Amino acid sequence: MSDFQSMQSSDLEREAVRLRERYEAFRRRDLSLDMTRGKPSPQQLDLSLGLLACLGDGDYRAADGTDCRNYGVLEGLPEARELFAQVLEVEPSEIIVAGNSSLELMHDAIVQALLRGVPGGEGPWGGREVTFLCPSPGYDRHFAICERFGIRMIAVSMHGGGPDMGEVERLAAADVAVKGIWCVPKYSNPTGVTFSDEVVERLARMKTAAPDFRIVWDNAYAVHHLSDTADRLANLLQACKKAGHADRVLTFGSTSKISFAGAGVAMIAASEANLRHFAQGMAVRTIGPDKLNQLRHVRFFRDRAGIEAHMKKHAALLRPKFAAVTQIFERELGGKAIAEWSRPNGGYFLSLDTVEGCAARVVALAAEAGVKLTKAGATFPYGRDPRDRNIRIAPSLPVLEEIREAMELVAICVQRAAVEQILARG
Amino acid sequence: MSDFQSMQSSDLEREAVRLRERYEAFRRRDLSLDMTRGKPSPQQLDLSLGLLACLGDGDYRAADGTDCRNYGVLEGLPEARELFAQVLEVEPSEIIVAGNSSLELMHDAIVQALLRGVPGGEGPWGGREVTFLCPSPGYDRHFAICERFGIRMIAVSMHGGGPDMGEVERLAAADVAVKGIWCVPKYSNPTGVTFSDEVVERLARMKTAAPDFRIVWDNAYAVHHLSDTADRLANLLQACKKAGHADRVLTFGSTSKISFAGAGVAMIAASEANLRHFAQGMAVRTIGPDKLNQLRHVRFFRDRAGIEAHMKKHAALLRPKFAAVTQIFERELGGKAIAEWSRPNGGYFLSLDTVEGCAARVVALAAEAGVKLTKAGATFPYGRDPRDRNIRIAPSLPVLEEIREAMELVAICVQRAAVEQILARG
Repeated sequence: MSDFQSMQSSDLEREAVRLRERYEAFRRRDLSLDMTRGKPSPQQLDLSLGLLACLGDGDYRAADGTDCRNYGVLEGLPEARELFAQVLEVEPSEIIVAGNSSLELMHDAIVQALLRGVPGGEGPWGGREVTFLCPSPGYDRHFAICERFGIRMIAVSMHGGGPDMGEVERLAAADVAVKGIWCVPKYSNPTGVTFSDEVVERLARMKTAAPDFRIVWDNAYAVHHLSDTADRLANLLQACKKAGHADRVLTFGSTSKISFAGAGVAMIAASEANLRHFAQGMAVRTIGPDKLNQLRHVRFFRDRAGIEAHMKKHAALLRPKFAAVTQIFERELGGKAIAEWSRPNGGYFLSLDTVEGCAARVVALAAEAGVKLTKAGATFPYGRDPRDRNIRIAPSLPVLEEIREAMELVAICVQRAAVEQILARG
Repeated sequence: MSDFQSMQSSDLEREAVRLRERYEAFRRRDLSLDMTRGKPSPQQLDLSLGLLACLGDGDYRAADGTDCRNYGVLEGLPEARELFAQVLEVEPSEIIVAGNSSLELMHDAIVQALLRGVPGGEGPWGGREVTFLCPSPGYDRHFAICERFGIRMIAVSMHGGGPDMGEVERLAAADVAVKGIWCVPKYSNPTGVTFSDEVVERLARMKTAAPDFRIVWDNAYAVHHLSDTADRLANLLQACKKAGHADRVLTFGSTSKISFAGAGVAMIAASEANLRHFAQGMAVRTIGPDKLNQLRHVRFFRDRAGIEAHMKKHAALLRPKFAAVTQIFERELGGKAIAEWSRPNGGYFLSLDTVEGCAARVVALAAEAGVKLTKAGATFPYGRDPRDRNIRIAPSLPVLEEIREAMELVAICVQRAAVEQILARG
């Protein structure tokens, strides 16, 4: 395979013609494929079908006798807290198990901080400038919360072991308006990166100008391994406690990609002071979570081992899909010096970097040929990728054959955009 | 029965001794009864046991083919919207069906208004004075939302047909900071009052200084009749549309007291402009509600007739409990000119007014003898009943025999407090 960047223009022009022909051939196939979001496939959802009827007609009591059909138990069922404390590696007293959406819990944490403040702070964050650090590429829904509430975002580069910590430390120490950082620390969305021990340690220890700085630790893929050699993520809450910053981190998780994406349970884990504060807000917002759904999850999964065994079945379904993506990228793009892509060990996404200035063009070309990808730029604050090169690939939902088709098309688009750019540059 | 207010003091003193003896006899019985909240009884929850397994092992598709296990469908399942549109008497396009808590939806409406504003307004409500009108006695959890976010509350008297509309109109017209009013318009918590057609009409038509004034219409007891001659509530959204104020009202409802208190579904109904705005906020907060639980409700209840038939079973269980309360109050307090109480046609509460200045004492006396009532004052803004006389009675949870015991004790406490007050006054 030849490096496009150093090819002669006559060869490149021939290549451009070939690519256009292949692209048009795809267009004639009338594909219609949506790869915009990281949705589990029906086969993955089938793995949890037992949840639907596992309470039978009369199993509605928690171990302590609580009638899960009725109001109350704001912090979640004790046995659900115990189960998910194992997953997030905290004490049961350091976790609240809530409704079906961890995004909702993060949203609430931010909203409460804006309107009421957080422990260790000096009143509400709202009414003055608030800034969040945004390791990018990152998760668009995190950035959407900031954008909605006028929280300024500063993109920080992602490296192989997590965010550029020099940059994070510099920004956090420099400005009291910098109140937090969004992190997906394990099998990060979309890069697949797991934060290194050093990064975790530095996040825990770093000096922050704001006394009430918060790390939003969205541990969405804690047990979502693709291989048998799982990544290991250091325990940030422990590290923060040791560093004397116990209240710095708010950890979030959910079973959205363990059980049912729309009908799982979500949780927040944090220091007891943070949790007490969070529960005060919750007590005004709701009388309690859906405890029946929590009980279903406890009955179905039993313990951490049950969840881990279940996740191996997910991995068996996902692994060939991720492999198909990298195989096609390797075949189509390898050695051409026009793209880089991640080979994640877990999570839900691959991250594809095109030649600078080409991502939007690639996404548009793919859409024209019937394959919808996540919007270019979506993985950056304000939807703007400064280098216009990152594309998030979400291979979980389509069947294998569709993924192969879609990725071949994407690879053609990446090449076409690159060749056209190189030729235009002259 | 003799009127305590005009009794001779020697007779009253004898009465006081008798009451103290009866009270002490109660104390020796070591009661332990919690009547603080309007929780459904286990027997009521049993009525919906069929919900637990009604999806079986493989029923997870909505009518349009949506896999309810997966992400998405922010506004709720079309068939769920259709079902609950019937209950709240709106169009399916005017309702969003969400999670298990209508309180959460109200909380979100307020929070979004504070941080972002509402249609027809001039930006966020936050950062300047915001006032809500609070027909009182009312629902403590409404007031708690205001208190948490620093929204000033003005109590407005409740009459037999709803709030004192002269007062509401005057306050709403006078001050641009008056942004809304909390209403439980049907079988009101705790008075049991259903707003009259005239009150509904005046709420729809009244002039408000704030262009973005909102009526929070917490229609929590829309179908919660106790008798066969149900109260009829006029349709406020219709009335608002006619009056040219379509965006004035946000209606809320839930199945918390239809199916399972902790595992029902909640909904917001409003003009399409309001709903669009609300959905914009929701889209940042969550990827979608628990659609499986919505599907369960659709399967189990089918249609409005199904819900109405179901509510008759609730009424059959609740009616004797409400009857026991009024029967004992009648027997113990009737004709003594020291108390008034509601005889509601639906809902979950009775409202008991003691002699002025006695409610806190009655609640304390009852608690000492083992019966926990809702805190005196809880039904007023800031937890302060200016006349210290209102007590909310929640008879749904205990069994009939316990209610009889508890109400006899409460009636004794009411008398004792009254007699002691009259004697002290000399």
